[in-house]
Amino acid sequence: MAEYKLAARTSYDSTVVDVKGHKLGGGHFAVIAGPCSVETEEQMLSIARDVKAAGAAFLRGGAFKPRTSAYAFSGLGLDGLELLKIASVKSGLPIVTEIMSEEYLDDFERDVDVIQIGARNMQNFSLLRTIGRLKKPVLLKRGLSSTIEELLNAVEYILVGGSTDVILCERGIRTYETATRNTLDLSAVPVLKERTHLPVIVDPSHGTGYWELVEPMALAAAAAGADGLIIEVHNHPEAALCDGRQSVTPQVFARLMGKIRRVRAAIA
Amino acid sequence: MAEYKLAARTSYDSTVVDVKGHKLGGGHFAVIAGPCSVETEEQMLSIARDVKAAGAAFLRGGAFKPRTSAYAFSGLGLDGLELLKIASVKSGLPIVTEIMSEEYLDDFERDVDVIQIGARNMQNFSLLRTIGRLKKPVLLKRGLSSTIEELLNAVEYILVGGSTDVILCERGIRTYETATRNTLDLSAVPVLKERTHLPVIVDPSHGTGYWELVEPMALAAAAAGADGLIIEVHNHPEAALCDGRQSVTPQVFARLMGKIRRVRAAIA
Amino acid sequence: MAEYKLAARTSYDSTVVDVKGHKLGGGHFAVIAGPCSVETEEQMLSIARDVKAAGAAFLRGGAFKPRTSAYAFSGLGLDGLELLKIASVKSGLPIVTEIMSEEYLDDFERDVDVIQIGARNMQNFSLLRTIGRLKKPVLLKRGLSSTIEELLNAVEYILVGGSTDVILCERGIRTYETATRNTLDLSAVPVLKERTHLPVIVDPSHGTGYWELVEPMALAAAAAGADGLIIEVHNHPEAALCDGRQSVTPQVFARLMGKIRRVRAAIA
Amino acid sequence: MAEYKLAARTSYDSTVVDVKGHKLGGGHFAVIAGPCSVETEEQMLSIARDVKAAGAAFLRGGAFKPRTSAYAFSGLGLDGLELLKIASVKSGLPIVTEIMSEEYLDDFERDVDVIQIGARNMQNFSLLRTIGRLKKPVLLKRGLSSTIEELLNAVEYILVGGSTDVILCERGIRTYETATRNTLDLSAVPVLKERTHLPVIVDPSHGTGYWELVEPMALAAAAAGADGLIIEVHNHPEAALCDGRQSVTPQVFARLMGKIRRVRAAIA
Repeated sequence: MAEYKLAARTSYDSTVVDVKGHKLGGGHFAVIAGPCSVETEEQMLSIARDVKAAGAAFLRGGAFKPRTSAYAFSGLGLDGLELLKIASVKSGLPIVTEIMSEEYLDDFERDVDVIQIGARNMQNFSLLRTIGRLKKPVLLKRGLSSTIEELLNAVEYILVGGSTDVILCERGIRTYETATRNTLDLSAVPVLKERTHLPVIVDPSHGTGYWELVEPMALAAAAAGADGLIIEVHNHPEAALCDGRQSVTPQVFARLMGKIRRVRAAIA
Repeated sequence: MAEYKLAARTSYDSTVVDVKGHKLGGGHFAVIAGPCSVETEEQMLSIARDVKAAGAAFLRGGAFKPRTSAYAFSGLGLDGLELLKIASVKSGLPIVTEIMSEEYLDDFERDVDVIQIGARNMQNFSLLRTIGRLKKPVLLKRGLSSTIEELLNAVEYILVGGSTDVILCERGIRTYETATRNTLDLSAVPVLKERTHLPVIVDPSHGTGYWELVEPMALAAAAAGADGLIIEVHNHPEAALCDGRQSVTPQVFARLMGKIRRVRAAIA
Repeated sequence: MAEYKLAARTSYDSTVVDVKGHKLGGGHFAVIAGPCSVETEEQMLSIARDVKAAGAAFLRGGAFKPRTSAYAFSGLGLDGLELLKIASVKSGLPIVTEIMSEEYLDDFERDVDVIQIGARNMQNFSLLRTIGRLKKPVLLKRGLSSTIEELLNAVEYILVGGSTDVILCERGIRTYETATRNTLDLSAVPVLKERTHLPVIVDPSHGTGYWELVEPMALAAAAAGADGLIIEVHNHPEAALCDGRQSVTPQVFARLMGKIRRVRAAIA
Repeated sequence: MAEYKLAARTSYDSTVVDVKGHKLGGGHFAVIAGPCSVETEEQMLSIARDVKAAGAAFLRGGAFKPRTSAYAFSGLGLDGLELLKIASVKSGLPIVTEIMSEEYLDDFERDVDVIQIGARNMQNFSLLRTIGRLKKPVLLKRGLSSTIEELLNAVEYILVGGSTDVILCERGIRTYETATRNTLDLSAVPVLKERTHLPVIVDPSHGTGYWELVEPMALAAAAAGADGLIIEVHNHPEAALCDGRQSVTPQVFARLMGKIRRVRAAIA
């Protein structure tokens, strides 16, 4: 009983997501980097410049933030999108940022290179269908308690709309273990790559919750065959408006990129 | 660090949700019953009549259905809402049905008595905020991997919009156990009732996935102090368009209602 | 593929465990009560007298305690067994206590009425086989991450040795929820009773970790069809050497027993 | 509140387990390989020769097998130990094999180089204490639902007996995901290495349940900083008496060893 068709792997050919020449998938390994939240122009320009210099191919940053508490900082909104655009133009890096509803759909369609659908919305089927119809590159994160099969069924909602360039992201699942924020399920990488032609990346920042664990898990993800990584980088983690605890500095990020290249070469 | 304020219990007074005289909470125990999906007018009228006769206070039925697969039956949509209205008028039972996006917000605001937000959308914060502003009764289901604290934080998004009549629903969480569809976490009932003034109900149908388990778990929920139940009832479970395996017949439902009344009396 | 044979239900007849006339199973509902740890003679005599007066049929108390930390109080050992015997003789209640290894097998065989195998040892197959050969009543607790099928396979190890009187106990499983110590899986009760003829009891003390939750969950377990309960009772919970947070006082226990009787009558 | 003392990391120095010159830990990476079950002399000699040639440092093989079902093949017992000894003498590889109870303690003390305590016995505190007193090298596997802190508390029971050479092993934890047998928690590697001086290895065979996933997860474990691996290798996986589905052939194993060396060099 094939429940997903468009997402299913039927040959050795893999989807390559290509945004203005920045490729991810099908042998092209790419790293998406940037802060949890867009905060200021200076912050974004500084981080964009640093992560580009270190080899990142895409710039991430949250303008609309899903927050557990109704009273927590939920992002700069459209102003944040504006800052992302400025940083993108100056750095030449395409933008990856999360959409939370259809409210600002036009803005996302016009301004965002890769539209991210977060873990909490992985089964927001209405949003999946709508985004799919935009036929733009999409980054879909696995839900906190979603099975691999559910993730593949969810991405099918996007593909039936006409999108072809969708990146899947393992970002940790919810287990009883409390030493880490989530449990990063790296076996999802080879399992997904066997079942789908879509590229698979890993988020070691949300997957662990601690910046000290980002390096070992990023290297592990690369060794497991991931097509890329999405990593939170902040120039002042201790003052970050969100998720500072799991953000690496540009210096740590640059060193990590070197190690990732060596691991990639080792498994080639 | 109080993360929710409006939802927090600050006194012995509990919220009573009152829809056209049908009360739930604060000592008023109520049962919501009906099929997984609205299918036909005959089906809805028959089930509405039977569950009302057995003592149900609200009629449920899905018009818009969240489905894991993009190719599964996803409900009759607005036609389903229409059938629900007819059944409601003829039976006198208020309607409880799930909203999946803001697309048909006006229809839900006009036609639906209690707007349900499903488990997969428990952290769709945009939808929560929008529904909250309608100031209508809402039924919020706990997410499959959501903690009790996250549920209380999610309901706060609804309450800040101005809604006051919100029902919380424990419907099973995701664990490693495979004998049941989910693991019904009945301890959530007393924990929630200690932390919030909002009414708490239990869904033994989705919580177990098997109609044979609905009766023991419904009685257990009543004994644990739940303010109500939401139960799937179908006149032809074997032919149901969805979730037939977990639907009880009107006959089983009527017998169950009698037992529930006895358990309620026993713990009074 | 039937993996368990002796444990499988093949008829409506259910096993009745009968210890000196104290029956559990097959319609005989029984409550096992007592402190987490045996501490002093005075403590045991006082609690035994109180729980008997309230209607408990068995006396529990730990002499050998499994503790996560190598440095935690691990029970009085053989001295604790001695105190249990004294309390049993004076109260007339049979003893239920946990064995942790084969080291004191002779003492347990001679002095203990119902030998408990704890959750951590549910798949200590060597211990299961050895205890099974004693042909004494056994109480087997479900492991923290054991499926219902694994529990049934584990009890088969005891039954093949020749034991026939084995009680199964649901005591909470490990999930991501942190509001309770474990998540009590009450649906295990009807599932187990459908698959096996052995009696099934519930431990709301370990299952929740908080004494305030013991009453609602004990009533829920009775309503779900459990054959009995095992409840931690301490005369001075605030000074208990272990698990005081989840122990009820004799006064609370006595009131709870009255409510349990009413719930039992309601579902009869 | 320090709950473990002897296991806690207090300096940069790490424990090196040294068995007849075969070192593991403190910068010495080592692979333990062999079949799930010891079956025949020919099998053991063949596999031992092949894994040694590929670079394995230790030979594994089960003589006493913990099995969920009381009726499953549970190993050759002492005859299996005998075959392990023969294979060890001929290959020069030290033996790693699991003990299930104290019944054959003398045999294990005399014949086994590294005594393995399995996941199901991780909190069999009586066995942990007894093995600790032997002062022999021990391999302790993390329980299926044990937290990292519980693993560290469990190993303390071994260390207080006088053992110093204990290897910890992450072998997958139990989650809701069913695509893999367990969910391999690789973040446990860096977390453990920060908290303890003991060496940490990974079992990608049990951790995934499928031989196709062994290679990517073994490489990922090496990249994450593990001190070693334990891998199931069988010369005829399709005819293996247990766990054939997750066993790699000697040919696959040899190729994997080459890749592991390259990943190790990349992160040096």
